[in-house]
Amino acid sequence: MNVRLQLKIISLLIIIISCFMIVPAILALYYQEMESFNAFVIVIAVSCSLALIFLYRFRKLKTELMSTRDGFVFVTLSWIFAALIGSLPLTLSGAFPSFTDAYFEVMSGFTTTGASILTDIESMPRSILFWRSLSHWLGGMGIVVLSVAILPILGIGGLQLIKAEAPGPTVDKLTPRIAGTAKILWFIYIGFTVTETVLLLFGGMDLFDALTHTFSTLATGGFSTKNASVGHYNSAYIDGVITLFMIFAGINFTLHFRVLTGRLHYLKHNTEFKIYLLIFVVSTLLIAFNLRSFYGSAGDCFRFASFQAASILTTTGFATTDFEQWPFLSQMILFFLMFIGGCSGSTGGGIKVIRIVTLLKQGFNEMKFLLHPRGVFTLRISGNVVRKNIVYAISGFFFLYVFILLIISLTVATSGQDLITSFSTALATLGNIGPGFGKIGPAENYAFYPGYVKWTLSFAMLVGRLELYTVLVLFTPRFWKH
Amino acid sequence: MNVRLQLKIISLLIIIISCFMIVPAILALYYQEMESFNAFVIVIAVSCSLALIFLYRFRKLKTELMSTRDGFVFVTLSWIFAALIGSLPLTLSGAFPSFTDAYFEVMSGFTTTGASILTDIESMPRSILFWRSLSHWLGGMGIVVLSVAILPILGIGGLQLIKAEAPGPTVDKLTPRIAGTAKILWFIYIGFTVTETVLLLFGGMDLFDALTHTFSTLATGGFSTKNASVGHYNSAYIDGVITLFMIFAGINFTLHFRVLTGRLHYLKHNTEFKIYLLIFVVSTLLIAFNLRSFYGSAGDCFRFASFQAASILTTTGFATTDFEQWPFLSQMILFFLMFIGGCSGSTGGGIKVIRIVTLLKQGFNEMKFLLHPRGVFTLRISGNVVRKNIVYAISGFFFLYVFILLIISLTVATSGQDLITSFSTALATLGNIGPGFGKIGPAENYAFYPGYVKWTLSFAMLVGRLELYTVLVLFTPRFWKH
Repeated sequence: MNVRLQLKIISLLIIIISCFMIVPAILALYYQEMESFNAFVIVIAVSCSLALIFLYRFRKLKTELMSTRDGFVFVTLSWIFAALIGSLPLTLSGAFPSFTDAYFEVMSGFTTTGASILTDIESMPRSILFWRSLSHWLGGMGIVVLSVAILPILGIGGLQLIKAEAPGPTVDKLTPRIAGTAKILWFIYIGFTVTETVLLLFGGMDLFDALTHTFSTLATGGFSTKNASVGHYNSAYIDGVITLFMIFAGINFTLHFRVLTGRLHYLKHNTEFKIYLLIFVVSTLLIAFNLRSFYGSAGDCFRFASFQAASILTTTGFATTDFEQWPFLSQMILFFLMFIGGCSGSTGGGIKVIRIVTLLKQGFNEMKFLLHPRGVFTLRISGNVVRKNIVYAISGFFFLYVFILLIISLTVATSGQDLITSFSTALATLGNIGPGFGKIGPAENYAFYPGYVKWTLSFAMLVGRLELYTVLVLFTPRFWKH
Repeated sequence: MNVRLQLKIISLLIIIISCFMIVPAILALYYQEMESFNAFVIVIAVSCSLALIFLYRFRKLKTELMSTRDGFVFVTLSWIFAALIGSLPLTLSGAFPSFTDAYFEVMSGFTTTGASILTDIESMPRSILFWRSLSHWLGGMGIVVLSVAILPILGIGGLQLIKAEAPGPTVDKLTPRIAGTAKILWFIYIGFTVTETVLLLFGGMDLFDALTHTFSTLATGGFSTKNASVGHYNSAYIDGVITLFMIFAGINFTLHFRVLTGRLHYLKHNTEFKIYLLIFVVSTLLIAFNLRSFYGSAGDCFRFASFQAASILTTTGFATTDFEQWPFLSQMILFFLMFIGGCSGSTGGGIKVIRIVTLLKQGFNEMKFLLHPRGVFTLRISGNVVRKNIVYAISGFFFLYVFILLIISLTVATSGQDLITSFSTALATLGNIGPGFGKIGPAENYAFYPGYVKWTLSFAMLVGRLELYTVLVLFTPRFWKH
């Protein structure tokens, strides 16, 4: 591993993060939250100074030297450092009781998990709440993707890096140069952000709430600035807008690009997109039907069912109601959705629809093979043959996912939690969802967990966001052998 | 599908099952349980007569004509019919309230699940309890394996059939002729049965209890003749003997054969066996440590921990205590073990250790591949290279297993059960374990489920016992196309 190279590019990343921190710093000044203001300013000043020193020191080092290994280390370290820098203002301002809690919260932010340790969100400084939501927004499209888009020096090697961070088994290049693709993705993201914010303003939200909730929606994060999450507004319009944009956020952004540039036929041929919509519609219908005696009107049934189905499927984690009060069948459907997640190339987490579809097709292929042992059966997704090594990688992924899920569940259980709390905590963090069942339901939070569990979960969120391999490969002896 | 051929060989199977029913019939006479006696005699008489008519009618039909497709249909139908014939005495004798309950119980018996609908086991006629345990014993080694061993006419095609029924991804042929292998397996099974029965008699059990518990142990079934399961005897000796034989039953029987014939080196080179023991030892140690303040002495901690770990890992489902009273960590470890199961070629159910090991190695291989994209990494188990198509099949299996698990959980949840009850019910039936968590804990039973759930679970037990593909392939349109 090239330590100096790592220091150089992580310094670059820290400067980017620090720049974004200027926004909550200004807000802190505006809202007269002086402790927060001081904290933000100190963190920005110190981290930028340090970063600049390193940048100057290694100014002659070519970033093109980065190897595949260095790429994995860099991407993993980026996220660890982003959460570190990001959590310092929360601790320094005194808003958060401990560094562990602050780190957990910001890792939850960057990884777009939305699991919170806050028991009274509304009592927090607004600048801190804004930063929390902004961390979602930055993490949603990917901080490495952002770096590649902004920094020309990462141009070469960029695809490698984006692959290590990207959600989903494959990365589509939209332009010959990867930096171009990264820019397009960010432009679409910004476009959606503006649109949703405006729509939420029409619904009666103030700018602060509209922006923070938009950040959370498009990143499929889940942090709200209200204790009752989106349920606070009790507005069918707001629920509808957020449901729509959660669904948008869970769709592959390269597909958005193609549709926005008029190539609608891509929608029709995209298996993952169609299955994703199908899952959303079917689960909404099932839940709505199951809730028929729970809410007064059919409209309410659909409103709450579609919001919650979208929220869990896309791994956002917003809530408009305490779904743990729902009939168990509806809960079971949500539990099922927790295993799926958004589309590849979306901001959603989880296993991803494309992997589920591939594995399901693979399962059916096995049955064909059983009937015709000498037959050759190709696996097609969106009309294209999926190569065997991709199916292999996906199979390995799925098993490791379940395996890690059980390991994290065990770790959580050591703190004395019941099965459903332990298991859904693991699922909600590894899948970057946020709320789960039992003691971490939508009306509760993660505050009660002891420190070692919070650190384990911070790790789980990171492993989930970077889709296992990028982080886990660092723990193999082979990685460190030369 | 060749219907006449199916009728012929299923008639053969029905005669075999009926012959075994003579034993509980005699017992019924001995215990003066006349309703049961009449029921057994009627069922034996009627089913044998029908079977003989069919056999005579199709006497000239060659069983060698059986195709691969016919094999799948035959194996699936064997189990459906075995449970049907087996459940009739339970209904006719009036011992069981409904046919649904009786079918569930006997399917649970043959598939060695051990899930019961009985609320007061000890009030049942003893002949019925004996038959229930005997169904475990017959299903444990496999009723098709039994047919192949007994009936020379199934000789050709036999390997195909055994493959469709066999637990685990591969079948080892011990002798050139498959009927020889089937015979050897059954001889070892009988040998273990005699040994355990004698050992249990020494522990103070009467012959009836010793035999029935031996049947349940070696088949990794779990039915007991006592309401408190093995806990009834409250004997460290009995617990120890049963723990040992549960572990034996969870080991590949071809490995037993090799060890019994002096080829001990097979033990050392068998990856699956070593990992299986490791899982057992580690989980026992963890649970025992976690229970340190729950039981008075270290001895008791180990006794209860090892018994329960063996019981769940091997998918037996016996209980010496209500483990739902244990600390949550211990419960979580048991929950984890529910995902594993015994070794391939054992009588244990579940996913099987070899599949877990293969997938874990596959996951690690993916990471090597990530570092060396052009590298070629072979996957070795017990020193042999596992071919890619086997890894493929196992990957497909694992995903389908989890998928079906969630579908069954959903179905159970429609009856208004909470998440942990629904999920563990699915896991306990699909994995042929028996008890789970929530309302189907070791101190409870399946009686409260409505009829449609019991039928779904009967199906789940069958699908689990025949390792998904054999049954599921019948539901593909391709199977019925010619």
